[in-house]
Amino acid sequence: MPEFTNGRHLVKEYPSGYPIPGRTTAYDTSAKINTDSVSLNGGILAKLLLISVDPYLRGRLAGYTPSKFALEEPLAGYGIVKVIRSENDKFHPGDILYGNGRIRHEEYSIITKEEAEHVVAFKPVDGIPLSVYIGAAGMPGLTAFTGLKEYGNVKKGETIFVSTAAGAVGSMVVQIAKKEGLKVIGSAGSEEKVKFLKELGVDVAFNYKTTDTREVLQKEGPIDIYWDNVGGDTLDAVLENTNEHARVIMCGAISGYNGEPAIVKNLMYTIYKQTKLYGHLVGPLLSKYQEAFDKDVIPKLADGTYKHREDKVYGLDKASQALLDVLKGANVGKSVVVVSED
Amino acid sequence: MPEFTNGRHLVKEYPSGYPIPGRTTAYDTSAKINTDSVSLNGGILAKLLLISVDPYLRGRLAGYTPSKFALEEPLAGYGIVKVIRSENDKFHPGDILYGNGRIRHEEYSIITKEEAEHVVAFKPVDGIPLSVYIGAAGMPGLTAFTGLKEYGNVKKGETIFVSTAAGAVGSMVVQIAKKEGLKVIGSAGSEEKVKFLKELGVDVAFNYKTTDTREVLQKEGPIDIYWDNVGGDTLDAVLENTNEHARVIMCGAISGYNGEPAIVKNLMYTIYKQTKLYGHLVGPLLSKYQEAFDKDVIPKLADGTYKHREDKVYGLDKASQALLDVLKGANVGKSVVVVSED
Repeated sequence: MPEFTNGRHLVKEYPSGYPIPGRTTAYDTSAKINTDSVSLNGGILAKLLLISVDPYLRGRLAGYTPSKFALEEPLAGYGIVKVIRSENDKFHPGDILYGNGRIRHEEYSIITKEEAEHVVAFKPVDGIPLSVYIGAAGMPGLTAFTGLKEYGNVKKGETIFVSTAAGAVGSMVVQIAKKEGLKVIGSAGSEEKVKFLKELGVDVAFNYKTTDTREVLQKEGPIDIYWDNVGGDTLDAVLENTNEHARVIMCGAISGYNGEPAIVKNLMYTIYKQTKLYGHLVGPLLSKYQEAFDKDVIPKLADGTYKHREDKVYGLDKASQALLDVLKGANVGKSVVVVSED
Repeated sequence: MPEFTNGRHLVKEYPSGYPIPGRTTAYDTSAKINTDSVSLNGGILAKLLLISVDPYLRGRLAGYTPSKFALEEPLAGYGIVKVIRSENDKFHPGDILYGNGRIRHEEYSIITKEEAEHVVAFKPVDGIPLSVYIGAAGMPGLTAFTGLKEYGNVKKGETIFVSTAAGAVGSMVVQIAKKEGLKVIGSAGSEEKVKFLKELGVDVAFNYKTTDTREVLQKEGPIDIYWDNVGGDTLDAVLENTNEHARVIMCGAISGYNGEPAIVKNLMYTIYKQTKLYGHLVGPLLSKYQEAFDKDVIPKLADGTYKHREDKVYGLDKASQALLDVLKGANVGKSVVVVSED
């Protein structure tokens, strides 16, 4: 009888500031599962291989998203699973499935018929490891691509500024922007990340902890496109230094995730500059852009034109700490938890 | 020799809070002009008839606009003048000219050849008094019309919320929106203004000083389009209560004009709702929409379909107080200074 401990990454309390591993979220080993006998009720029994650790998960621990996590339930997010058993005609044992935001942080999951609407079976392209499908080849890469396509109105020769440019999304934004002929300014929070940005071809890379963002923007701007991952005072600095008709793609506001919200004071500037600001969510844009992404971006990841870095940890028990690291910027590259290698 | 005192409305000091009539801006009678002999150098001698008193003038007394007023010089803005003498072939004595933002607050002006690029000669349509051309038939009306057309993406049955809805711009926004089949929610700062909103056909009119904006929006929303004249906490209240894909037309942020800037904390909501925010300036959109405005809006003003109210004062010496009243919301209807009736 293959009965296993079914490790889970649970929400224990809603954090007020940064999440606290072991207290607000914790790895739990109290559940068991018999993978042979568990009832599927038309669903799929899936084994968790990889989970994507993303800043937005903090929002689902808070309340400003419609999909707040429930207490004592596993977190959920983007991830990759392998089918063990299936009563769903569309999926078969051995299939590798990619899940859009609803893959539960538990070692074995039963994916219901309804939940299966949100997973896709896929085969990695030669040259792209499986884990990259939750990074540059997956949601973060798609976030970069769809945001620039839908809202960027990119014109060769313009100037883009990207905050948290060394992150999973930012590092794809800067490379796609460079390919489109933009002057790229990127900020990050350590010298190691700045070095990575230079490897990616960023024209002006700086450490915002040691260099004043306003000074850089005054010297290297004005800004035509701002890819905003942080909000708050960085956004204010940009609004003071835009060209007319600038576009701001609001993809995140990490400066406000872990305590007081990110405060913005300079929206007044948008009127005289006729600035446009767009709240950007990747999910609803996938059907419009997935095909173009597969054609334009995937081959460049496979042949190494687009570079990417991963920050991997092993074991679901490391997920809480990995999330805290992402929120504090301690990771370099896409944060991935490898739960199982097969 | 027709030598006149040339009264001027001058910038004396830059205000830090509300402007102070007589101190930060003041009426000055020290200049004289001989209307027969003054040299025109290819320009036009014009007599000031009407000036438009608009909240944005506060910005030009501050510094967040590119066109800050100079000290000891007259303010300038939208206005209507009559040509007395002309050395410019395009304009002739007796012509009535409408000026886009550069009409100086002085009883007699010499409009240079270059400045004349920014004035147009016009004849009022039957049924529309001259003063309405700096109100509903002029810049404020055009601001409403161009903003809704360019950014509103108006769809019948949607819900719009308009702040300072009884103002010169707001009262045109609500009427155009109503005509387009929207549910219209409007806020204003007095019972008298709320009554005016009801006369305009606003579906839900409320006094934001006595009724909680969030409660109204929760009950009557969610909001598809927000016409933002105030910024700050009102904008935050809207961002909490939007439909997906809502549009925010940022036309002003009066809550932040006279002291601390208007602080916004809720931009995070824009991501999950995919909200779009547009900084809206009327000037650059005129060439695109003036013809449609003349065809769609002017006849409805002439026949009374669209209503408007004016708050008139007489004499350029009243301009400083009129500006303060507008910034404090003490006016009901479009604020106009009648400098001369012929």
